[in-house]
Amino acid sequence: MITSTSNTRIRQLMQWNQKAKARREDKVFIVEGTKMFLEAPQSWIREVYLAESFYEKMPEAAAGKLDRCSYEVVKDSIFQKISDTQTPQGILSVLKQPEYVLSDLGLMRQSGHPLVIVIENIQDPGNLGTIIRTAEAAGATGVVMSPDTVDVYNPKTIRATMGSIYRVPFLYVDSLSDAIRHLKRNSIQIYAAHLKGDRSYHELNFTKGTAFLIGNEGNGLKEETAALANSYVKIPMEGRVESLNAAIASAVLMYEAHRQRLG
Amino acid sequence: MITSTSNTRIRQLMQWNQKAKARREDKVFIVEGTKMFLEAPQSWIREVYLAESFYEKMPEAAAGKLDRCSYEVVKDSIFQKISDTQTPQGILSVLKQPEYVLSDLGLMRQSGHPLVIVIENIQDPGNLGTIIRTAEAAGATGVVMSPDTVDVYNPKTIRATMGSIYRVPFLYVDSLSDAIRHLKRNSIQIYAAHLKGDRSYHELNFTKGTAFLIGNEGNGLKEETAALANSYVKIPMEGRVESLNAAIASAVLMYEAHRQRLG
Repeated sequence: MITSTSNTRIRQLMQWNQKAKARREDKVFIVEGTKMFLEAPQSWIREVYLAESFYEKMPEAAAGKLDRCSYEVVKDSIFQKISDTQTPQGILSVLKQPEYVLSDLGLMRQSGHPLVIVIENIQDPGNLGTIIRTAEAAGATGVVMSPDTVDVYNPKTIRATMGSIYRVPFLYVDSLSDAIRHLKRNSIQIYAAHLKGDRSYHELNFTKGTAFLIGNEGNGLKEETAALANSYVKIPMEGRVESLNAAIASAVLMYEAHRQRLG
Repeated sequence: MITSTSNTRIRQLMQWNQKAKARREDKVFIVEGTKMFLEAPQSWIREVYLAESFYEKMPEAAAGKLDRCSYEVVKDSIFQKISDTQTPQGILSVLKQPEYVLSDLGLMRQSGHPLVIVIENIQDPGNLGTIIRTAEAAGATGVVMSPDTVDVYNPKTIRATMGSIYRVPFLYVDSLSDAIRHLKRNSIQIYAAHLKGDRSYHELNFTKGTAFLIGNEGNGLKEETAALANSYVKIPMEGRVESLNAAIASAVLMYEAHRQRLG
């Protein structure tokens, strides 16, 4: 059992929790809780850490899967230090980062039409996680992110995905413009969520291959990014509201696409 | 100029920022930033505090309105202490809490149909603020909250409303059941957002008076609250998603009502 914060692995875990750079260098990320452990693809799991109290009263479902993992028990007071939450569940897994390519984003699917979210410079970790969770729910086939978007492996982002991080293909691209051009070559219509849109979102047809461009919380899309879209799309707003939260705007668009595709 | 944190007013401001109870007792709340100051209804403003550096380089728009307010200049290092943000804008206003009644929630409107959001036990301040912001954007006429909902005057909630707190009528009720019965007597159809809904949200008609019941982030609506609804409404979800974020679910429902009402 690990009983000291000066243990090398404990110090490593604290780095991975706090620093995007450390996660990136080692190509890992951390998930907490029983649900996140149980849903994790087996092949992604590198190590598991259990608080002593969790180990002693192990939920049956966790015990079965733990048999196939390498795990380590940690004193409760030490576990508190490696946890990113105030009331840790007592199980923390180190996973290897998945590596997707653009063609994983539903672009090669034989059936159905891709529905892609393209994110530029979203900075709030919770917003990004919520977008990924909503993307899975609305049947989106993938998420593309600009290099200046917040780290998707931030513990707050991971928590907000509620497990969708395992199931929605996503990737950072060096150039969002190149990625958008690639989508266009794959017959995907590009819609920029933009206040200057002249068409409301429910007047457009999203039943074919569709990508939505979503910009930064405060500034929206850069003009040169928006200019690559086939159309600007507007979400009408009443009252004196100047813009919607980025996760809300994404949800309204994705669920409109979902509704149209059901019909 | 205030130069010390032992100043009575500074200590009072810190209390109001940190404690819902202190805000409730004094019937005040705090907003930060130029936009929030400029949009605040004049009759709500009790006091304004300016950081010294803000006072010296006052934006013109703020100067005009400040002439009609009682304000106090505070040393920058002290202003940092009363601000809830890491990079304060340098202007903080103490506002009096508005007092709405149920009939303010669009129930007495001669024209148009009420669109009400009924919130039970939402705990995340950001979620609540985002719901209020989206409510204004989607043309909702009011927000009703259960007594165990997080404090709407929490600084994080206020920030997330982006000013909609000034324009969307809202109130806490002692009994959510009584409030729902009141809405029903006003010919408002009650829809519970519920995983067991047998109708999808886009199959229902929200063009007449409509209220959506939205439950707690983790547990959803209490059964006895959901049972008061005229119908359960489902937002279909793909993949393995078990639920949507509460603000996202509210947005999908409110924007569907908005879309139907445009048509």
